Formats: sequence, C-alpha cells, structure tokens
Amino acid sequence: MWAMIATWRMAIEGVTKACNELEKGMDAGDAVELAVREVEDYPFYKSVGYGGLPNENCEVELDAAYMDGDTLSIGAVAGIKDFANPVSIARKLSDDKVNNFLVGLGAEEYAHKNGFERKNMLTDRAKLHYAKRKKETLDKGLSPYAGHDTVGMISLDEKGKMCAATSTSGLFMKKRGRIGDSALSGSGFYVDSEVGGATATGLGEDLMKGCISYEIVRLMKEGKHPQEACDIAVSQLDAELKRRRGKAGDLSLVALNNKGEWGVATNIEGFSFSVATKDEAPTVYVSKVVNGKTIHEVASQEWLDAYAKRIKAPIDID
Amino acid sequence: MWAMIATWRMAIEGVTKACNELEKGMDAGDAVELAVREVEDYPFYKSVGYGGLPNENCEVELDAAYMDGDTLSIGAVAGIKDFANPVSIARKLSDDKVNNFLVGLGAEEYAHKNGFERKNMLTDRAKLHYAKRKKETLDKGLSPYAGHDTVGMISLDEKGKMCAATSTSGLFMKKRGRIGDSALSGSGFYVDSEVGGATATGLGEDLMKGCISYEIVRLMKEGKHPQEACDIAVSQLDAELKRRRGKAGDLSLVALNNKGEWGVATNIEGFSFSVATKDEAPTVYVSKVVNGKTIHEVASQEWLDAYAKRIKAPIDID
Repeated sequence: MWAMIATWRMAIEGVTKACNELEKGMDAGDAVELAVREVEDYPFYKSVGYGGLPNENCEVELDAAYMDGDTLSIGAVAGIKDFANPVSIARKLSDDKVNNFLVGLGAEEYAHKNGFERKNMLTDRAKLHYAKRKKETLDKGLSPYAGHDTVGMISLDEKGKMCAATSTSGLFMKKRGRIGDSALSGSGFYVDSEVGGATATGLGEDLMKGCISYEIVRLMKEGKHPQEACDIAVSQLDAELKRRRGKAGDLSLVALNNKGEWGVATNIEGFSFSVATKDEAPTVYVSKVVNGKTIHEVASQEWLDAYAKRIKAPIDID
Repeated sequence: MWAMIATWRMAIEGVTKACNELEKGMDAGDAVELAVREVEDYPFYKSVGYGGLPNENCEVELDAAYMDGDTLSIGAVAGIKDFANPVSIARKLSDDKVNNFLVGLGAEEYAHKNGFERKNMLTDRAKLHYAKRKKETLDKGLSPYAGHDTVGMISLDEKGKMCAATSTSGLFMKKRGRIGDSALSGSGFYVDSEVGGATATGLGEDLMKGCISYEIVRLMKEGKHPQEACDIAVSQLDAELKRRRGKAGDLSLVALNNKGEWGVATNIEGFSFSVATKDEAPTVYVSKVVNGKTIHEVASQEWLDAYAKRIKAPIDID
C-alpha cells in the first residue's frame, strides 16, 4: 500500500504528482517533500510559500517542518524569510544530530550555508491582500487575524515508511516572529511508521493547547481507525476550549494509518482536503460537521471551479 | 493543598521563596513566575537567564514558556536576547488572544514595547566557559554540545489552580536560532489544573520526539500517580529512541498532580530536583535509575556543599 493525505484543496497537485512517484516506489520522505514544494511554489496559494501572506510589517515569514516516522527525526524552521522551499530546509535539518529546529536569522544562516535557493517570497498579489486587509482593519475595526491555512501532509510508501511535513506563511498579519503550531511536533504534526501520522491546520494558538496531532496518533496506536481518532481528538479539544475559554479557534486535522486508511475531523464548515491511495485516485473532499461527526463529500466540479476562480480573482481595494 | 516541583537543585531558592507566598495564598501563576525569575537572576546558574551559556557565536539566546492550567493559555519566547526575565515576557504573551509564541527579533520588539527590562545577559564567567569549551572542542575533538539544564516548574495553589513555566539558555554552543523543547507545549511542559502538570529537561531534540510532558499529564488523567506516569513515559521514550536510533539523549521529567502528589523520572545518573508542598519543607532530591525505576534520595549536605563549590569554582583554561 502507498497513500497520502493533506490539508486543503491546494495540496491536490502536489499529492497527485507525488503519488505518481509513490506508485513507482518513491520513498515517503521524498514524496512528502516533493508534494509540499509544489504547494510552496504555486503563487496563488496565499498561505504557503511563494505568494504567502505577510506579517503586520509586510514581511513573509515562513514556518515548516518534516518528520520521519521510522526514526522519529524532526527538522523544523520558523520565521524564515526569503527562501523558496522551507520544507526542504526542515528536512535537511532533520538529518542533523542536534540543532534540528532553527528560527529567524539562525535558520536563514543555515539555509544559506547549505545552498538553499534564495527567493523574494513577497508577491505583488500578496501586497495587494496586505493593503486591503490593512484598510479593512482601519476602516471597519475588523480583527486583522483571519487566514491561517497550513499545508500539512502525511505519506506512506510501499515499504511501510511514513513521513509528515508542513509548510505555512502563518497567520496573516501576525506579529513579527509569531510561531503557530505548524513547526511544533505533537501540535502541528506527528508521525510514527508503526502506527500512522496526523497533521493540523487552523488556529495554531489553540491547536497547541491540545498537542492534537500527537493525541490522534496515540489514539490510532490504541487501535482506533483514523476517522474515529480524529473525531474524538477534535471534538474533545473543541469542547475543552469552549468550556474553559468560551470559544475555540478553527481546528482541522487529517490522519493516515500505516494500512492506508485515513480520517479527517474539523470544527469548521467547508474544510477541504486531498487524498490519494493505491486504491483511490487523487480526490478533493469537502467536510462538514453533523452531530459532532465530520462528514466528507467529494468536491463537486462546481466547487472546484469556484475555488479556481476565487484564488485568481482580482483584489479590489475600495 | 499547595505545592511546587522543579527541575534541578538550582530551583530551590526560587521554590522556597514562592512557597512562602503560596502558604499565604499566592496565585499559582504568580508563584511559578516568581520562582523562575529567581533562577534567571542568579549569575552562577549557567543554563538559565543571566549567566546562561551562549550559542556558538557567543550570544546568549533565551527560551521560556508559561502555561495556565485553568484556561490552557500558553505564552512562549525563543531565541530572545538581552532581556532580564524571559519567563515574565512569556507569561505576558499568554494573556494575548493570538501571537502567543514569539521568536527572535519579534520577541524582542514585543518585550521592548511592553516595557520589559533590558540587560546584557552575557557574563564574564559565561565568556570564560565559552572560551574553554571552544578550546576543548578544537584541541580534543569533543562534541561541543553538553549542558542543557532547563529550569521547569509546576505550581499548585490553595484554590487548585496549576501553572507551568520553563526558562533556559538552551544547549551550550547551539547554532544561532536553535530551539529546544522548553518553549514547546507538550514537549517541554504541559499543565491542566483538572489533572496535573509535567515539565522536562534534557536533550530538547529528543524530548520533542515524544511529546513527553503532554503524555505524562495524560497518564495522570487516566488515574496514574505522578511517579508511575513519569516512570512509564520516560522508560518508553528512552526505549523507543534506543530501538529506533541506537541511543537516547538525556530525558528528565518532573510532575505534580492537583492533589500535591509528585513524581520524577530520568534516564541519567544524579538528576537533582526541588520540591515543596504544604506537608513537606523545601527539599532537594537526587535521583538514580535502578531496574528501570527512578529512585530519589534527599541530597546530602556533602552533595549540596560540593554543588555550591562547583558552580563558583574558578574556570581553568589550559
């Protein structure tokens, strides 16, 4: 068996490309890196890599992580600027004995010394989004903080190896140096080839209150199906946050076990995700919550067309 | 009941001071902050705050975190330079709605704007340690990476509120921007007032492979005594790391439940920790591992005297 699951519709091109290679025997680590790079490189995905939305100072600060489910090796970067593929830097860091998680200038020094490609990651389109949000915030008193769509992926190869990777530009309009869950093992991702893996998207500040990716893998280790594990962990964290804090941020999780079975749970309407396995062609699903359970439907052509139109629509600043 | 537990002998002065206040009804958050500040301020503790050992560029980069066990609010900073009390910055961040974890320049900007005290955290003694290590590394080919003693504390107040806090200068000779486990919820610390809390010290890169603080709290939630929870989690992670990677870094965990019961487990010889509860005067213990179980003995006067002498001993650079 081989398989991949990833957060959001934006992952589908990368997942499709990587799964063509997994079918030919590609390693799970190579596959997940290839797929995330595809998302990082595409300028119209505005929450990951090139074209990602900037912080409050109009700087694109990127977070990424990589985990090997055989060795539990982790590599991560956060608050890194102007490198094309943060996920590849994270993966390279996972090979080192120590210093596996680097932030800010230190991460940039490491990437420079290791020959990673420099690229100005702030696009003209991202600058328009920034100008628009800034105006809305001033004019209408809206919270600047909306938009935090991390791409997170779990891969399984024919040899049974599993890997996880994440990449994000983080919360739009975040403060300089803000880190969410995506670079934090246990919160943004976790994978163990002997069990399975999980990865998160949503409000990082709330996801890290529950170590939710680790918790889902742990539930799968107890024998739970990935769907059941996701439903339990998301509904519990959502309920705890509401009980203790009056509200819960967005929490969306995808999981895959080492048999290629998958599951997804969310506390929002219309969470999309991308899946492909040896037995299932690359497919985009859209989820909704019905009586505390997350229900998935294959995305309609209409939904997919509307998405394609939306991400390239002109940005009006009135 | 009120209680505190903390990693290492270096915590005892802070724990003693804070427990005098807990006895008089101080809040668990105030107590843990007070106690950690005491460690940060003391120049002869060379892995936390003022006097902490620098990175490979001879810069002292500090990590700290704070968690409220009632609300699960988290605040954290990492890679912050030249502020006197990182734990207080972390605590202040935990009050914000988002942007709760800031690194590097962003963390410094936040601390500046919020009026936190600037202080050059690199002492002459730390510079001597740096020069000595640099020479040893060159002369003898030793790994530069030894020394990573985070102070982590869990507090319980008379009202039943629990808090966690950590503070460290991180791995001695680390690369610029390196983050360990201390600022990462679930790995370096976790606390839930309805259950208990746990906090870690050791090799951050390995501690984060197991989300071990979260796991200990989870085991306590299942009904395990803190000692049993620590023993299970530490021996399992140690065994997994050895099986999959051939070796395990240092892992030392302390835990406290909301009844004031405590537990400690380690995979090293001579791990010291500090405890005080309503029923137990402030005490330093030293641990060792016997047949997979961690055994604690009250530190002898001889041990305490040798410690006091060692931390102030002249630094010879031959």
